[in-house]
Amino acid sequence: MQLLLVNPNTTDSMTKKMVTAANAVAATGSHIVGRTATYGPVSIEGYYDEVFSVPPLLEAISAHADADGVIVGCFDDTGVDAARCITDRPVIGICQAAMQHAAVVATRFSVVTTLSRSVPALEHLALKYGYERLCRRVRASEVPVLALEDGDPTALNKIKAEIALALRDDEAEAIVLGCGGMADLATQLSGEF
Amino acid sequence: MQLLLVNPNTTDSMTKKMVTAANAVAATGSHIVGRTATYGPVSIEGYYDEVFSVPPLLEAISAHADADGVIVGCFDDTGVDAARCITDRPVIGICQAAMQHAAVVATRFSVVTTLSRSVPALEHLALKYGYERLCRRVRASEVPVLALEDGDPTALNKIKAEIALALRDDEAEAIVLGCGGMADLATQLSGEF
Amino acid sequence: MQLLLVNPNTTDSMTKKMVTAANAVAATGSHIVGRTATYGPVSIEGYYDEVFSVPPLLEAISAHADADGVIVGCFDDTGVDAARCITDRPVIGICQAAMQHAAVVATRFSVVTTLSRSVPALEHLALKYGYERLCRRVRASEVPVLALEDGDPTALNKIKAEIALALRDDEAEAIVLGCGGMADLATQLSGEF
Amino acid sequence: MQLLLVNPNTTDSMTKKMVTAANAVAATGSHIVGRTATYGPVSIEGYYDEVFSVPPLLEAISAHADADGVIVGCFDDTGVDAARCITDRPVIGICQAAMQHAAVVATRFSVVTTLSRSVPALEHLALKYGYERLCRRVRASEVPVLALEDGDPTALNKIKAEIALALRDDEAEAIVLGCGGMADLATQLSGEF
Amino acid sequence: MQLLLVNPNTTDSMTKKMVTAANAVAATGSHIVGRTATYGPVSIEGYYDEVFSVPPLLEAISAHADADGVIVGCFDDTGVDAARCITDRPVIGICQAAMQHAAVVATRFSVVTTLSRSVPALEHLALKYGYERLCRRVRASEVPVLALEDGDPTALNKIKAEIALALRDDEAEAIVLGCGGMADLATQLSGEF
Amino acid sequence: MQLLLVNPNTTDSMTKKMVTAANAVAATGSHIVGRTATYGPVSIEGYYDEVFSVPPLLEAISAHADADGVIVGCFDDTGVDAARCITDRPVIGICQAAMQHAAVVATRFSVVTTLSRSVPALEHLALKYGYERLCRRVRASEVPVLALEDGDPTALNKIKAEIALALRDDEAEAIVLGCGGMADLATQLSGEF
Repeated sequence: MQLLLVNPNTTDSMTKKMVTAANAVAATGSHIVGRTATYGPVSIEGYYDEVFSVPPLLEAISAHADADGVIVGCFDDTGVDAARCITDRPVIGICQAAMQHAAVVATRFSVVTTLSRSVPALEHLALKYGYERLCRRVRASEVPVLALEDGDPTALNKIKAEIALALRDDEAEAIVLGCGGMADLATQLSGEF
Repeated sequence: MQLLLVNPNTTDSMTKKMVTAANAVAATGSHIVGRTATYGPVSIEGYYDEVFSVPPLLEAISAHADADGVIVGCFDDTGVDAARCITDRPVIGICQAAMQHAAVVATRFSVVTTLSRSVPALEHLALKYGYERLCRRVRASEVPVLALEDGDPTALNKIKAEIALALRDDEAEAIVLGCGGMADLATQLSGEF
Repeated sequence: MQLLLVNPNTTDSMTKKMVTAANAVAATGSHIVGRTATYGPVSIEGYYDEVFSVPPLLEAISAHADADGVIVGCFDDTGVDAARCITDRPVIGICQAAMQHAAVVATRFSVVTTLSRSVPALEHLALKYGYERLCRRVRASEVPVLALEDGDPTALNKIKAEIALALRDDEAEAIVLGCGGMADLATQLSGEF
Repeated sequence: MQLLLVNPNTTDSMTKKMVTAANAVAATGSHIVGRTATYGPVSIEGYYDEVFSVPPLLEAISAHADADGVIVGCFDDTGVDAARCITDRPVIGICQAAMQHAAVVATRFSVVTTLSRSVPALEHLALKYGYERLCRRVRASEVPVLALEDGDPTALNKIKAEIALALRDDEAEAIVLGCGGMADLATQLSGEF
Repeated sequence: MQLLLVNPNTTDSMTKKMVTAANAVAATGSHIVGRTATYGPVSIEGYYDEVFSVPPLLEAISAHADADGVIVGCFDDTGVDAARCITDRPVIGICQAAMQHAAVVATRFSVVTTLSRSVPALEHLALKYGYERLCRRVRASEVPVLALEDGDPTALNKIKAEIALALRDDEAEAIVLGCGGMADLATQLSGEF
Repeated sequence: MQLLLVNPNTTDSMTKKMVTAANAVAATGSHIVGRTATYGPVSIEGYYDEVFSVPPLLEAISAHADADGVIVGCFDDTGVDAARCITDRPVIGICQAAMQHAAVVATRFSVVTTLSRSVPALEHLALKYGYERLCRRVRASEVPVLALEDGDPTALNKIKAEIALALRDDEAEAIVLGCGGMADLATQLSGEF
């Protein structure tokens, strides 16, 4: 089974990171291939960026009709509703996937994302998906998406600090990393906390 | 005070209808000017059409910096969140405006809209705005948006039939007409029901 | 258009303050006239005071049949439901009006009110109006209503302290001042925060 | 233990009916005494009547300081919040009491009340008390309160018809009779349905 | 990867049916093995049966420590919370799994289950999992669990009738079959409706 | 009237404590008799213990058919749903009873319980009963159930510390002691706080 992961921003390093992480946990016989938006914003932080990232996302999905399913590789689940209009294949965003998974392994969870300006959109998704009670808080680490690509040495510490607060103050049993660019941190941070 | 009403689809007759209806009830001293999207879909019915109507909407808002406020003339409140990112002026969609008004004059209301495929997006807006209890039901009349422009003689009867059901079965105290293209029907239908 | 603002308590200075604030932001052509309850409590703080302030409110509304609409000038929205039973004119309380406005300009807000004993009634209104999610917290400054009239020098500082907490701890994007007697503070506090 | 049941309307036959029904199920050693409002509306149907029934209710509660607890004998739970402000004794309305009891013996229930104009206030109480899910529907039988006192022969049939609909369409496991004046019907109707 | 599916009732034919259905859609490389409760009720219909089916379920999970994950093959998700206390392996019930899947492919769904007496428990699960809005209704077909094993010719027609009602009256976009014993009907019914 | 209080764990000292507390507040003419589970866990802390305590609970209820009503003396309301399946007598758990009582005397309350691992089950009960808004927080004192029986001198201080936090941070108007083993502390703690 082939799954198409589309990164709706134009930053190819993020696509690679997500595809590597996804293939590492994929079922035997499933294979994830990645595509990066060919135009539009370099990162998606809030409602404005979302607008311009959906057309290239839809084009990528149409261009790969052989994939058995589609993963939208942006934690805002950008364009998922529109994508479901143009294909009968299952389409899932990484936010809905992560929250559903968290709801199986934990009785409450918190999200740690990038900038404050993304928080309202993510709270909105939690409500839309029915997780307004299980998701105790969406926390911003104030790390911009691209700082995760640039190797900014302070980024990881800011994320860790926010995770520690979520465990202590929200009594979260699981942490959802709220950005596709954090895909490579999951194993390390799970070990540490 | 000048208010800019942007119709995010390209059907100019709908813009005219909405501007006429809006000026008829505007406060003395307030004036509504209309703009129609210069490219994109001819009507907005569901999530897919929304994607391609937001860029021309944002352009129209930026191009009219002299307006004191912005009305998004589409009942999906298409692009309102993104519009709020590019201007400090107040931006309101006609769905949020109508639901807030209904919440003042009625203890429960129903929405009568166009096609079934728009219903999930409108239920979603009701939830986002806090009206999941006051809004008893979003009903589709199965009248396509453009049939309202074409003068299809069956359109009005289908809308009336759905209003009658909402009054009887939902015990609605108010009906919200869920499409910008129905703007010219409000006075007549209020008189009748 | 003439709008009637009724202050359901007997403190005339509060009425004047609210009318001045309302006329400063009214649309051209709209004019707000104020009336003060002719008997009943001097301030409304909690459920007990509300009981005795509704009869004079209803009398004032009946006595001014020429007004096009009615504003109930008490943040408990005291008697609004009953007022809607005696007139077909639109009736709105300043709490519902303020929360609806906040819901357009912010993705979440907090209320800063007077005494703790008013908090349950205001939380109850937020729920009734559908703002139990958007309204993050109703905070008491522990400033009695009449201290706002007496020029108590500590009152403003207590309110400012509570606003600062709401911005930091509730991550509020807007603050709703939860008492008619705070009407004259809005401009100053908006500038400061 | 002596419990004071205050009927906040002035119809003494309703008071007698409620006191008789209450004493029939009271614990051994508990005794319910009734008081009827000495002025105000003859029946309470909706928000307007509530306003004028609370002052005599509060007077009756203050006048009987020897009662160990207070029951407000009106299904709108009229004045319960205010009553709790003037006494440390427990105060409960018959709506909250009935819904709490229904929540113990049934997994979902419906309310059958008098006129349509009382429905919004009762739906509001269900929400305030946390029963917006367990209470499936508030149904109006269109029997005015005083028709229950006058022995109108059609009243009982209208109530039975609405109960039948609640059992069939709402899949209610319990029916809450939503008016103090129906107190004498409970045993008969329980037997029949 | 090996997954353990435990049927917490003692009816082996149901286990076989579920394992066959699960393996038909499992990812390449994943294999589902079934175990049937060795004592306890022959079917689980409501809260009472659940009590006695959990101990054999927990024993089966402990006895198969080599499985990589556990599926509880009862639509009441019987014992899932307790099972999560005795193993670090992921444990999921077929109700939560089905509702999560429905939430990805549909904007609203209804459940069609066996007897009315199971409905409260399933409504409760929908609420617990956050699907009280997306799940429009839990419908009973009044087909007992074991009638599905006995080949009762009327059973399928009753289920079809209820699906038809769900599509028409609930406007469901997906139907969740609410009993493990219906596992063999999914393909046929999907084709038909 | 005789009421049966069943303690579903095997610790007889807890049963005695609860029966003493219950009889102290029972109506004249009502008498509470206690029964302790004859096998199963010595204390119930979380979902696993619940499984094994329900069969002896059901046996005790069946064995005392002369009792007029049943109280389940465990704050998890363990087995209440199943108990309601085997008897027509009213069955109530001490959690539901306590929360209903708190909802009459306070506008918001917090629960102080034993270990963290019981918190998810109690939050779940609050949601099931409709108290997810009135119950502001379920707090763990980290006192194991049996420490309450052993006379551990630090237990009371831990509980007091958590109550103080609930009053200050949750603005709770009432505290619900969330364990049957705390039954003897209610009077003392009510006096103190």
